[in-house]
Amino acid sequence: MPVDLRKKVAIVGVGCTQFGELYDQSPEDLMCDAVGEALADAGCARDRIEAAWVGTVMSTFGGDALADALKLFGRPMTRVQNYCASGMDALRNACLAVAAGMYDVVLAVGFEKMRDGGFARPNRSHPVLDFGERAPHIFALSANRYFAKYGATKKTLAAVAVKNHRHGLKSPKAHLRMEVTEETVLRAPMIYSPLGLFDCCPTTDGAAAAVVCRADLVRDFTDEPVWPLGIGLAAVSGQPYYKPSFGYVGFEATVRAAEQAYAQARVTPADVDFAEVHDCFTITEILNYEDLGFCG
Amino acid sequence: MPVDLRKKVAIVGVGCTQFGELYDQSPEDLMCDAVGEALADAGCARDRIEAAWVGTVMSTFGGDALADALKLFGRPMTRVQNYCASGMDALRNACLAVAAGMYDVVLAVGFEKMRDGGFARPNRSHPVLDFGERAPHIFALSANRYFAKYGATKKTLAAVAVKNHRHGLKSPKAHLRMEVTEETVLRAPMIYSPLGLFDCCPTTDGAAAAVVCRADLVRDFTDEPVWPLGIGLAAVSGQPYYKPSFGYVGFEATVRAAEQAYAQARVTPADVDFAEVHDCFTITEILNYEDLGFCG
Repeated sequence: MPVDLRKKVAIVGVGCTQFGELYDQSPEDLMCDAVGEALADAGCARDRIEAAWVGTVMSTFGGDALADALKLFGRPMTRVQNYCASGMDALRNACLAVAAGMYDVVLAVGFEKMRDGGFARPNRSHPVLDFGERAPHIFALSANRYFAKYGATKKTLAAVAVKNHRHGLKSPKAHLRMEVTEETVLRAPMIYSPLGLFDCCPTTDGAAAAVVCRADLVRDFTDEPVWPLGIGLAAVSGQPYYKPSFGYVGFEATVRAAEQAYAQARVTPADVDFAEVHDCFTITEILNYEDLGFCG
Repeated sequence: MPVDLRKKVAIVGVGCTQFGELYDQSPEDLMCDAVGEALADAGCARDRIEAAWVGTVMSTFGGDALADALKLFGRPMTRVQNYCASGMDALRNACLAVAAGMYDVVLAVGFEKMRDGGFARPNRSHPVLDFGERAPHIFALSANRYFAKYGATKKTLAAVAVKNHRHGLKSPKAHLRMEVTEETVLRAPMIYSPLGLFDCCPTTDGAAAAVVCRADLVRDFTDEPVWPLGIGLAAVSGQPYYKPSFGYVGFEATVRAAEQAYAQARVTPADVDFAEVHDCFTITEILNYEDLGFCG
């Protein structure tokens, strides 16, 4: 029987940086900006942070990277790496540690410095199959399979790009703040068929942070806490594309992680009013709808 | 008030590989060997593992690396990186997650493939101060300062090497299984003064694993569980050697982490009968004695 997080753990402050091509900002700058905003949001003194988890993929940092950035020393700080879920996994471990009763107030931080920090692919890859492989190529295969299986078209993808750009226009911290029309998306230069320029996210620098505390301390910080009800994570093969059984129209890890989260929260997909999902490519967001059980 | 882990979490099985220059074994081989032994030690079926934490420094793996190695898919697996403490931090997070009540039976794994997996230094370093810096150089500075401050000599270091080689001879899984005399250690080729060949650990491949479970499930597995009483971790600056205030005769992170562990366990250094410490160099072990409070 999974733990009922809602009785134990709350998120009482959040923050994030501007997102973009931040050539003038170091990883330390990004962490400080996001954490500073989260602490201010929580009305939490920096010294009250007892432990931290920091998720990042590209930089081979340990937890000390956050300690150095914040000048907050002598506390436990763990660096987690789980690819695109690294920031979420930092939050998950932070929540579990508070639920364990080990710490009262902790930080979860995610950051990435992709534009001028060096883009190093994880060094495990297949010497033949992986040669020349890049993300748009992989997700283009998924888009084509999705089209074949469900009769979707480039217009289906374009609806995601139009919606997300409209939302970005309303967010002062979004990387690309401009409206695009379906026509613009459909006529954009091709990156990897069927994915055009507006089907692909930019590579972006940024950071986000959350202050997590014991449920009974919430009133020290805020009247509007966020109560996590469930947090799932699932590792499947790190090389799904090399498996003959991989169908390309969804990710088993997402399905399994969602099952965990739904079970912990005791809800079904039908209970979900709002979702934020990964949208590295427009097709990714659509596949996530499928995997999260939103497509019936 | 820190949590009392002993009421919540137990280690019910452990395993490790042979350590050495294992050119014929992949990271997957190492993980499977160590985990297989830990599961056998616990009498635990592989499918009973609900989540895992895997610590490694050199390889930019996510948690999926362990999932692929074990063919154990759909569960949460987190990769943590915290330099020389990565394996311990994997165990720490595993214990916290069980103490939180989220999982009943989990794995903690540490592994490193240093000999032919590519030895990549973390990519953050000082462009001038770090130029040409290697581990023996850093710890040699500590040894010389320790000699100056406490009147120790190369014989003090040699006593560590002689002791540890004697213990290695008794362990079938040790990398170097040979007795050495003080004379051999003192006459060995110099690596970086005052550290000679036998003051420096070899670079070694290997893995270790532990099965961690909820306290009330211990009897499913073993009559001889290990009850963790305290687990500390402290991040200080990742670049202590660049700080003018760094004294070279100890590490503040070790002091702070030990304080946490002692407080959780409600013991003092005087209560400790046995310790296993990091011995990358003979001087490291001696500095750890100081930092753990064993030197009065």
